[in-house]
Amino acid sequence: MIEVIGNGQANSRLQRVSSKLCGMESWKRRLPITIWLPKYSLEFLLRDAIAGITVGLTSIPQGIAYAMVAGLPPQVGLYSSIFPGLMYMLFGSCKDVTVGPTAILAALLAKYVAKSADFAYLAAFLSGCVILLLGVLQLGFLLDFISKPVISGFTTAAALQISASQLKSLFRIAGSSGNTFFTAVINFFRNLKTVQLWDTVLGISTIIALLLLKRATIAVSDTTSPCRARLAACWLNVVRARNALVVFAAAILAFVLSLKGITPFALTGTIEGGLPRFGPPPFHTVVGNQSLQFEDMLAVFGGEGVVMPLVAILESIAIAKAFAGSTTVDATQEMLAIGMCNLVSSFCQSMPSTGSFTRTALNHASGVVTPAGCFFKAMLVLLAVTLLADAFYFIPRATLAGIIVVAMFSLMELAIVKQLWRNSKIELVVYLITVVTGAAAGLEYGIVCGAAADAARALAHAARPPLSVTAFKVGNQDCVSITLSGALSYASSQHLQHKIRRYVPAYIAVVVLDARQLYAMDLGVAENLISVIIDLEKGGHRFLCWNFKESHQKLMEDLHRGFESRFVDGPSIDQHVLGLDITR
Amino acid sequence: MIEVIGNGQANSRLQRVSSKLCGMESWKRRLPITIWLPKYSLEFLLRDAIAGITVGLTSIPQGIAYAMVAGLPPQVGLYSSIFPGLMYMLFGSCKDVTVGPTAILAALLAKYVAKSADFAYLAAFLSGCVILLLGVLQLGFLLDFISKPVISGFTTAAALQISASQLKSLFRIAGSSGNTFFTAVINFFRNLKTVQLWDTVLGISTIIALLLLKRATIAVSDTTSPCRARLAACWLNVVRARNALVVFAAAILAFVLSLKGITPFALTGTIEGGLPRFGPPPFHTVVGNQSLQFEDMLAVFGGEGVVMPLVAILESIAIAKAFAGSTTVDATQEMLAIGMCNLVSSFCQSMPSTGSFTRTALNHASGVVTPAGCFFKAMLVLLAVTLLADAFYFIPRATLAGIIVVAMFSLMELAIVKQLWRNSKIELVVYLITVVTGAAAGLEYGIVCGAAADAARALAHAARPPLSVTAFKVGNQDCVSITLSGALSYASSQHLQHKIRRYVPAYIAVVVLDARQLYAMDLGVAENLISVIIDLEKGGHRFLCWNFKESHQKLMEDLHRGFESRFVDGPSIDQHVLGLDITR
Repeated sequence: MIEVIGNGQANSRLQRVSSKLCGMESWKRRLPITIWLPKYSLEFLLRDAIAGITVGLTSIPQGIAYAMVAGLPPQVGLYSSIFPGLMYMLFGSCKDVTVGPTAILAALLAKYVAKSADFAYLAAFLSGCVILLLGVLQLGFLLDFISKPVISGFTTAAALQISASQLKSLFRIAGSSGNTFFTAVINFFRNLKTVQLWDTVLGISTIIALLLLKRATIAVSDTTSPCRARLAACWLNVVRARNALVVFAAAILAFVLSLKGITPFALTGTIEGGLPRFGPPPFHTVVGNQSLQFEDMLAVFGGEGVVMPLVAILESIAIAKAFAGSTTVDATQEMLAIGMCNLVSSFCQSMPSTGSFTRTALNHASGVVTPAGCFFKAMLVLLAVTLLADAFYFIPRATLAGIIVVAMFSLMELAIVKQLWRNSKIELVVYLITVVTGAAAGLEYGIVCGAAADAARALAHAARPPLSVTAFKVGNQDCVSITLSGALSYASSQHLQHKIRRYVPAYIAVVVLDARQLYAMDLGVAENLISVIIDLEKGGHRFLCWNFKESHQKLMEDLHRGFESRFVDGPSIDQHVLGLDITR
Repeated sequence: MIEVIGNGQANSRLQRVSSKLCGMESWKRRLPITIWLPKYSLEFLLRDAIAGITVGLTSIPQGIAYAMVAGLPPQVGLYSSIFPGLMYMLFGSCKDVTVGPTAILAALLAKYVAKSADFAYLAAFLSGCVILLLGVLQLGFLLDFISKPVISGFTTAAALQISASQLKSLFRIAGSSGNTFFTAVINFFRNLKTVQLWDTVLGISTIIALLLLKRATIAVSDTTSPCRARLAACWLNVVRARNALVVFAAAILAFVLSLKGITPFALTGTIEGGLPRFGPPPFHTVVGNQSLQFEDMLAVFGGEGVVMPLVAILESIAIAKAFAGSTTVDATQEMLAIGMCNLVSSFCQSMPSTGSFTRTALNHASGVVTPAGCFFKAMLVLLAVTLLADAFYFIPRATLAGIIVVAMFSLMELAIVKQLWRNSKIELVVYLITVVTGAAAGLEYGIVCGAAADAARALAHAARPPLSVTAFKVGNQDCVSITLSGALSYASSQHLQHKIRRYVPAYIAVVVLDARQLYAMDLGVAENLISVIIDLEKGGHRFLCWNFKESHQKLMEDLHRGFESRFVDGPSIDQHVLGLDITR
């Protein structure tokens, strides 16, 4: 049983797709709720409810915070936790994934929202369409072209930029925060004199409290007695709801102080609670006193707007894989689910949403069993936005900034720097290009430059394929065998020509090009091979092209009439060498 | 003698470079005139002079014509044939190459010259600097990343655009000609009513005359008697000088008609003859009533300005290779030569120049022996521009347009379409992308989009590496061996994981990953390999990683502590399988 996978996958793919379209099972897979709901039980309900509520308690402060990162009204962040969550319950295939606004998407969105909030809803709609399209066309494999170093670099650059953009709220300094990491840091130092004492104290305290509570999880885990174990479980819940608790404490503090007539902190301010306006996303808007039609809005997004849906898929699928354990993730289904989440929620005043790492981890840790957990989360957030909107008035902005900064700590991927430094310095360069470009010019440029640098690196690798050379004798003829292997792309054609010249000294009578492991060859490679062969033959060498694929033989014969006399097949080369009439 | 070329070439390269810097020979190679001049003879002089004068007779009309393509005064095209030619005599390593303005460079330059002619001289200066830099840093290998289909597509798009831009002069229609093929064609049809009869007749006659004369070369070659042979040789010279002859005839006609007071044709007009103004290229200019500093001029060139030096190198090296025969071309030296040509000539009112295919072919056919041929060509053109400038007044523009159009016929590469259609349809797509983008959006975009599409194609190929799978038995254990080969780039990591899962059915006890032919592996590939191995081991399979390179072992151990227990070496795998303690 030897199977070599080369081309010709197109046909089998077509068959696969057509057989899928006919089976009932495959349609059920596209609406996973039809699979898990019939088996649903009361125990599942209880566990999903606990997990959903725990996640909901984090979704509320994070939703408000990420809406602020994007520059949107706080309730938009909450709506974006509700409606995508409900859609994911229907279409999601991974029980742990929690969909909602994320810091990175919010950061990507900010520069458009600076023009008009309408861009946020349109971005959700367009992202939904793009993601759905990629899902339907099964183009998920395109993401394979974004490598680990680029993703890590992008995430790190995003974490840097988002943290830097929070410096303004954390210290309540004047001026704008800036669209990139560097401008945000520069603006921070430029306005350093306007730092407000009490906001700074509250912001720093929030960060310290959150970090301490996070660390407490570890301290609690090694208990033995049953009583202490129950206490520990209780404490664990406190730890898990730490974001909500910190916000609650800070809001109470601000409220009490305001009763006494003191308002030392910048507060979130009035939130327009209740349900969102339902209706199609805005296809035209007004910026300044300029009326923008749909095509103008598209022009504002431009080419780099594609980065948003791309990042949404990347985040979501990466998270799904991280929590899938031994089951494989159906990337197509995840894309359909995230696409539907964005498409539908754009009709409910939501910003683009995708899987969130922190909340998914929390969902997993809280023991969620099915995607129904999303339902309970959504209900809790819905309750909050309809009933508690007035209470949100008192949430200090510095606390929210603190929550964001702590969330960013866990996003920064620095361990990979060490790994790459030890094992692959050239991939480290790609990582650094992504981070630096992302931090200096903007996140979109970071991911694009990183991917381009990575492609160049991979191509450069392909340009220097290894050639193994073996010298042997047949009779009293000196022969040399040069093995061509893998896929020879155009980038390698010069190198190949050069090497073959080097490997064929004058005393060699017969050169064997061994193509048993060659499975692809570009036109340029074939041309250069022919030219070096013809040229060396003028110097008296004889060439045998051994076991070339038929398509390669045809190509070379097509490029140089009469070339085919050099092709030989069969398991042994010696007989062919003996068959040559060598007269030198 | 088995040699496998992998990494670690950096060191040997450093050694090579340092040894080169020390040897006298290598310095001589950088000034090839020091090699050929000492061996120069009278016979060489005669042959070089004949070839130089033949080429010069073509250089004059082509120089004037290409200056008009770029929108520059005619004498600039002549200066660009003189000074680069003299520099190439000093630095050029390939006897046949003739340097001067080319149609493609002129077409690329046109849109900048439309603002100010100063951009032409600055473009020559900057191109010279970039090419020199690439030569000094030995970055010529970067050109390997532009494949044959992209170069052919670019050349074809350029030929299309240049031909279309000549429609205006050929038919003497009103209006502008447009910056791309499509706009030129559209403008042509829009202004079709303004066609002038006599220019059209002259233009078409020029084309027919040139094509007939070109064909005559073939008819003449099969002669046997000595008398007819001499006649044939004489005729061959007429054929070779056909461009000059056609221009001469047309100018005489226009002159005679003008004596009678008739001027039916659009003429070249007054040429400011004599020597150029010598001096540094303009680092600031005035466009309209706006004064542009150096940085503003750089901004006008923008990113796509890089295409000009790139194309100059590509053209020149491709031509050098085509005429080098069995000697290898020193790409670095060619880059230094072309760089010097542009740099120096930018001080003499010249436009960017590079190797010209038609004139190089003519030089070769005229039997040139050394780069001294360039000297005679330059002298002839210099004589013409100083003494005959007034005579150039009468050259009809339609004749020059006809010369350009005929030159473009030989540039269009259509044979490759057939080759690619038969052998590599995906490369044909790359070719078509280059042609269509080049013709629709501009030549620069054509080459950039084509190269990007080609990179994507090559990467996609790399994303689906072939895996060969062999099932075998050791004792009563079912085993499977999966061979990883070549360079596994990040793009293949998902595919790999997927395939390995597929190739390992439940009854298999031991999976051997055979890495004897694996020479490179990205971080992402290693991560995915580890994750699929760990996962399948949970299902009861045992993995042996056989003959992994030490660097790959280190990487995988670094990613997953304790992974190294799976690595085994040695020529046979059976003993390692037997050594496993398999209890299922």
